Amino acid sequence: MNEFSLIQKYFKQHKYSKNVVMGIGDDCAILELPKQSHLCVSIDTQLVNRHFPEQFPVNLLGARALHCAVSDLAAMSASPLWFTLALTLPNANPDWLASFSEGLFDAAHTYSIQLVGGDTTSGPLAITIQVHGVVDENKALLRSGAHEGDAILVSGYLGDAAAGLNVIQNKLIAKGANKQYLTNRFSTPYARIKEAQFIQSRATSCIDVSDGLLADLGHICDASELSARIVSSEIPLSESLLASVDQAQALTWALTGGDDYELCFTVPNEHYKAVINQGALLGFRFTKIGNTIPKMNKDIIDSETGQPFHFLNRGYQHF
Amino acid sequence: MNEFSLIQKYFKQHKYSKNVVMGIGDDCAILELPKQSHLCVSIDTQLVNRHFPEQFPVNLLGARALHCAVSDLAAMSASPLWFTLALTLPNANPDWLASFSEGLFDAAHTYSIQLVGGDTTSGPLAITIQVHGVVDENKALLRSGAHEGDAILVSGYLGDAAAGLNVIQNKLIAKGANKQYLTNRFSTPYARIKEAQFIQSRATSCIDVSDGLLADLGHICDASELSARIVSSEIPLSESLLASVDQAQALTWALTGGDDYELCFTVPNEHYKAVINQGALLGFRFTKIGNTIPKMNKDIIDSETGQPFHFLNRGYQHF
Repeated sequence: MNEFSLIQKYFKQHKYSKNVVMGIGDDCAILELPKQSHLCVSIDTQLVNRHFPEQFPVNLLGARALHCAVSDLAAMSASPLWFTLALTLPNANPDWLASFSEGLFDAAHTYSIQLVGGDTTSGPLAITIQVHGVVDENKALLRSGAHEGDAILVSGYLGDAAAGLNVIQNKLIAKGANKQYLTNRFSTPYARIKEAQFIQSRATSCIDVSDGLLADLGHICDASELSARIVSSEIPLSESLLASVDQAQALTWALTGGDDYELCFTVPNEHYKAVINQGALLGFRFTKIGNTIPKMNKDIIDSETGQPFHFLNRGYQHF
Repeated sequence: MNEFSLIQKYFKQHKYSKNVVMGIGDDCAILELPKQSHLCVSIDTQLVNRHFPEQFPVNLLGARALHCAVSDLAAMSASPLWFTLALTLPNANPDWLASFSEGLFDAAHTYSIQLVGGDTTSGPLAITIQVHGVVDENKALLRSGAHEGDAILVSGYLGDAAAGLNVIQNKLIAKGANKQYLTNRFSTPYARIKEAQFIQSRATSCIDVSDGLLADLGHICDASELSARIVSSEIPLSESLLASVDQAQALTWALTGGDDYELCFTVPNEHYKAVINQGALLGFRFTKIGNTIPKMNKDIIDSETGQPFHFLNRGYQHF
């Protein structure tokens, strides 16, 4: 099977929205942006044995890569519109491709994001996705907008995905519903698009937790020229996580594990209760975990010790 | 060196145009399109030993990948604006990175295209570039616009890049200026952006010759529901190519070699002389190589034999 028939068979959408002037099938995709909007783009590569384990189910592979990529749009409070896929494959196995593309399109459907272009090459398995979203002019949430004294909030629970990865790799035993929940949290990390749109006019800065809370909150601190004081006992840990590991391990994963794809954001301290309460009415779970403080030598302080957190790594290191 | 310091050191542009609201340094790049324009995007992966030989100079590696990617914008007659880079590297060698990024930015400068985002991962060398350009609404040149009887034209010379690759791989001996010219044609395939803008209002369809003339013209034929008759003696072959191989080999490479990144396009037959002559005044070399004909069983007919061209492959097969 050559590249052209492979794309035709497994990756060509047969129906596009009006904003896709030309989808797959020419030298470029041609796309129409809404008026008075800015384009947001992010590109992300996932490699076997690095971003996901070898035994990871094929039908979740492209889907997970897409969830992770869309999470970067959520971090800006952008609305997903289109994505492209550069797929490198050891061989063109029809069963593999059918399963991969079916999972990918299911995930795409979740966000109403359309596959508009791609490239397939032969080589060691690699999945590169670029996502494209839109945001009203000057409404994007940046890392750099936090002010001193802002409340720091996170969505959902942290640490689950690291536990889930350990379960998938048979390094951690979890049982029944806990096992299912934790592995799902690694395998299918829904990007917090709706939450991001809710906080767009309320938050001063935002990032998604992909590399670990300390690493990602560190980026907000760097970009906003601030430090942060975190109350570690306030960090939201799920019942499934606490049922599967001890408190110290749960907290370590929550702070450094990464892969949760929750949002970490700041709001003026006087508004944080309203954000939590109004969010709850829409089904969103937000938790205050600390406050920004004036810039110090160390970015992130443990409020219990008054010292920086001590871990070997603050988050995922690619090299 | 971790991912963040690597990007800061080698890939962060320190000055952007006004259309880049946010470049590298947040979860997404934020980009502003000109009014009344459409966005054109294309993504392309290049792998060692597949798209370029292992001994290929590092300073030309990223540059070549960018030229090739920008060529897809030329094929639509779009103007280059931005690109993203997903780079997978076996290790983060400072000399390698300095040379790679310097060559990349030199090439970017040629097109005034700006690096706005990226991702670096650790693994077997792979370079994925997505290019973003703009075109006035409904002005893009598609593959599907050719009409029966249109003249088929190409820019520049064909077959040089295949010869150049063989020279680089020590499979072909070329001498002095011919050697330099042919290897340059493989290593630094300038995308035909200016030529494309010149033909925008004159051509009915367009593609860039990346996989080989027969393969790429075949895409125009498929999309336009036509066939083509080619006068092979009219196919433009460079002096350097003809000085280095016999006529039959030169023609084979011109028809099937790929990697030339010239434009192949159609114009109404009555206008082709004007296109060639007006183009020549601007320094562009266009050659008529045949005409479109009603759809037949075989896409592309050799006018000398009245039969399809006989080659093992019509062009580069990725699988």
